[in-house]
Amino acid sequence: MHEHEVYESYTVCVVTVSTSRFKKYGEVNGLENIPEEDESGRLIVDAFMENVRDYKLVSDDVGMIRKALISCEQDVVIFTGGTGLNPKDVTIEAVKPMLEREIEGFGEIFRLKSYQEIGYRAMLSRTLAGIYDGKAVFCLPGSKNAVKVGVEIIKEVANHILSHARGMR
Amino acid sequence: MHEHEVYESYTVCVVTVSTSRFKKYGEVNGLENIPEEDESGRLIVDAFMENVRDYKLVSDDVGMIRKALISCEQDVVIFTGGTGLNPKDVTIEAVKPMLEREIEGFGEIFRLKSYQEIGYRAMLSRTLAGIYDGKAVFCLPGSKNAVKVGVEIIKEVANHILSHARGMR
Amino acid sequence: MHEHEVYESYTVCVVTVSTSRFKKYGEVNGLENIPEEDESGRLIVDAFMENVRDYKLVSDDVGMIRKALISCEQDVVIFTGGTGLNPKDVTIEAVKPMLEREIEGFGEIFRLKSYQEIGYRAMLSRTLAGIYDGKAVFCLPGSKNAVKVGVEIIKEVANHILSHARGMR
Amino acid sequence: MHEHEVYESYTVCVVTVSTSRFKKYGEVNGLENIPEEDESGRLIVDAFMENVRDYKLVSDDVGMIRKALISCEQDVVIFTGGTGLNPKDVTIEAVKPMLEREIEGFGEIFRLKSYQEIGYRAMLSRTLAGIYDGKAVFCLPGSKNAVKVGVEIIKEVANHILSHARGMR
Amino acid sequence: MHEHEVYESYTVCVVTVSTSRFKKYGEVNGLENIPEEDESGRLIVDAFMENVRDYKLVSDDVGMIRKALISCEQDVVIFTGGTGLNPKDVTIEAVKPMLEREIEGFGEIFRLKSYQEIGYRAMLSRTLAGIYDGKAVFCLPGSKNAVKVGVEIIKEVANHILSHARGMR
Amino acid sequence: MHEHEVYESYTVCVVTVSTSRFKKYGEVNGLENIPEEDESGRLIVDAFMENVRDYKLVSDDVGMIRKALISCEQDVVIFTGGTGLNPKDVTIEAVKPMLEREIEGFGEIFRLKSYQEIGYRAMLSRTLAGIYDGKAVFCLPGSKNAVKVGVEIIKEVANHILSHARGMR
Repeated sequence: MHEHEVYESYTVCVVTVSTSRFKKYGEVNGLENIPEEDESGRLIVDAFMENVRDYKLVSDDVGMIRKALISCEQDVVIFTGGTGLNPKDVTIEAVKPMLEREIEGFGEIFRLKSYQEIGYRAMLSRTLAGIYDGKAVFCLPGSKNAVKVGVEIIKEVANHILSHARGMR
Repeated sequence: MHEHEVYESYTVCVVTVSTSRFKKYGEVNGLENIPEEDESGRLIVDAFMENVRDYKLVSDDVGMIRKALISCEQDVVIFTGGTGLNPKDVTIEAVKPMLEREIEGFGEIFRLKSYQEIGYRAMLSRTLAGIYDGKAVFCLPGSKNAVKVGVEIIKEVANHILSHARGMR
Repeated sequence: MHEHEVYESYTVCVVTVSTSRFKKYGEVNGLENIPEEDESGRLIVDAFMENVRDYKLVSDDVGMIRKALISCEQDVVIFTGGTGLNPKDVTIEAVKPMLEREIEGFGEIFRLKSYQEIGYRAMLSRTLAGIYDGKAVFCLPGSKNAVKVGVEIIKEVANHILSHARGMR
Repeated sequence: MHEHEVYESYTVCVVTVSTSRFKKYGEVNGLENIPEEDESGRLIVDAFMENVRDYKLVSDDVGMIRKALISCEQDVVIFTGGTGLNPKDVTIEAVKPMLEREIEGFGEIFRLKSYQEIGYRAMLSRTLAGIYDGKAVFCLPGSKNAVKVGVEIIKEVANHILSHARGMR
Repeated sequence: MHEHEVYESYTVCVVTVSTSRFKKYGEVNGLENIPEEDESGRLIVDAFMENVRDYKLVSDDVGMIRKALISCEQDVVIFTGGTGLNPKDVTIEAVKPMLEREIEGFGEIFRLKSYQEIGYRAMLSRTLAGIYDGKAVFCLPGSKNAVKVGVEIIKEVANHILSHARGMR
Repeated sequence: MHEHEVYESYTVCVVTVSTSRFKKYGEVNGLENIPEEDESGRLIVDAFMENVRDYKLVSDDVGMIRKALISCEQDVVIFTGGTGLNPKDVTIEAVKPMLEREIEGFGEIFRLKSYQEIGYRAMLSRTLAGIYDGKAVFCLPGSKNAVKVGVEIIKEVANHILSHARGMR
């Protein structure tokens, strides 16, 4: 598959989950409003270029995270943040029960790649990928390194996932 | 509790789930657009009078049902329809994983009352009640009789559920 | 509904789950081979008369119970035995994950009726009802009293369940 | 069964779950240390008389609740409190995954009795009963009325549950 | 372990899950009836040679898939097909709840190997392995490449799984 | 991170799960009582040196395993044994429902490392890692090889897990 095809074939929504930034900026919507300090969110937006059509900033709250997921009208929804081991981290807990199909291999390959880069600590990265309402959904950790790894993988598989999810193959 | 208090204390959104009506009318939003033949939806709207602030008609589709739930801004969300035993009936399947707390006693008391009225067939009625994002959520069968029983119970407990859900007691 | 209709409209398979009898008689198949001491199995067979087309005796073993369920070719499958609170009782554990839809109200109404007859002990009766592969499936306790209550309820609802399960309404 | 037999046949541990009292008294252990204001805990202790051998007071904390359950050496463990619909109420959430067998009928009969006394609000009472490590475990709401209903039912069924759980029948 | 031992120690049943072929050929049973175009099924049959004792072709239907599993009398049951991300793919959904023990590492190693061959797309392969009723059960994707990878792994571990499952080690 | 820091920062409890040794030695508590033949338990104790503060030997019993977990007062709890595919192996089944957060990546990286050493058989190793009550919990197989791999990984990540679990980062 040519990279060109990838970039034209689907739209992307980026959702940053961060209570600290939410406290500072409130609920944020729209690409023009990305807070400067949200480097991870910005990194994803830059990576998918003109395919990105929307951006949201929500807090670590199950209700807000789900509302963000459901209100996204793009083909691919990428969450960043709120995936840690602390009880306040609930992004995966919020999204998982809503998925129609979970793609367990995403986390495996993500951690395999991270392991090759940062060693055993890679195992602490919780991620999630799956299909919701015909969309490909990904939850990535909030660190820039994690986002870089995640973006690289998503670029390679998003089209495949969407075509499977929509029964085109 | 005086009935007057009940009627002033919370707002209601009614969601009818019906593929056949959806095919006929498309997605419907707003109290002024209730299709005449949606007698069950109308019955709930009439029962809660001025407390009812919104109405939606969606098809038997997990994605649409969840979107309806999440987009309701009222205190109480009442679904009717899509609760049967047929594989196409998915209202309960769509709503259940989104609840933060399920109120198992609702279905029991609902069926107990139905049993006293219609006998053993009451056991076939699937219902659901619980709390989502600070809201009280109910799923009732689509028949007018079921809606009548459900409305009577909801009127008696909605305030209690909301006050528990919001930690006011 | 006229009783006559009930009796003509569906076929029944009775499965007794009992390790002690299994040890004595081995796996039993066919109505002509019901062990005399299996009074509960006999009671169900007699209650549904000519509608009953098959009988099986299996032990308290998840594999055997599931095999019995899957190999039944009748419309209604009624298990008796293996529903107690002891770890060796696994009928419900074996059947539950195979159901496409569970009918929670069956157990409630069953226990409500039992409660009216035997009081609080009724709550100890575990039962299960649901739909598997277009069939109505019931798990009853092994006691004759429980079987009597169960048979009375099943007779009233089996047709309704089957028609729902098969989407005829 | 004669009441005399009931009272001699099993030992009881009472566990009150209450963050507000825990803040005031800290972790409490032993029958001689029941805080005077814990009327519900006292009510259970009085109801089972000399059968009660231990008392604990813990906060609404999953870890503490489970530790209390596991450290009880009595035949019957009765929790009171922490069963409401508020997110801070976690008694049922803490105990449920530890049960080897759940007794669904307990909550039903409990709510049926409550319904006859207090009407529809009964449905809001969450309870739990089951078997853990050969013990009969019950979770009751924290109100005195709920405890009264619960104690009455537990007295009638505890022996039955224990004999089932231990395979004596 | 010598390859010779592997080939003598267990029997195999191959089940192809494919609605399109099912529509063309109906339910197929027996090694002599493998449809010529079922290259993946044929590939597995050839790989396990005389160990293979049965072949079935079923459609993407939960009931048929489970019936196939339960009716296999061989030590090892290998499904191919119906593992994709499309809602119609239900092989894993049908088999998973029936497993007594799941072997999560199978999918990981499968995808690790696929990743080394085909890159990130490997993560989209859903597989399943586990123990049902003393048998080793595997679900592989329907593509020939996936089947090749799967067969290689199964050959290496089937004996180990069977000996563990049967408590011989 | 300097190894020195690792060794000072947390305390460890080692729990060996083995019915055969339990039958021989009964319930064992305390580092001074490790049975000589428990080479795997000894290996873990030696690896974490003065950080290890307690040792327990329990049988393959859900109740005993959970009691051991809950009674450990150390920061890190390491189980060895009872993780196989045989129905009698229940360590993972006992611990999993008690975890507040599961660390899925632990098993993946564990099997990845094992795979590089012993090949495909690595996939049969079931492990578990997660957070319970602010503690890092690990379940390792009972073989010395598995314990060696596990210890190496735990040493690298225990501090990270604890700091995440306690919200210090």
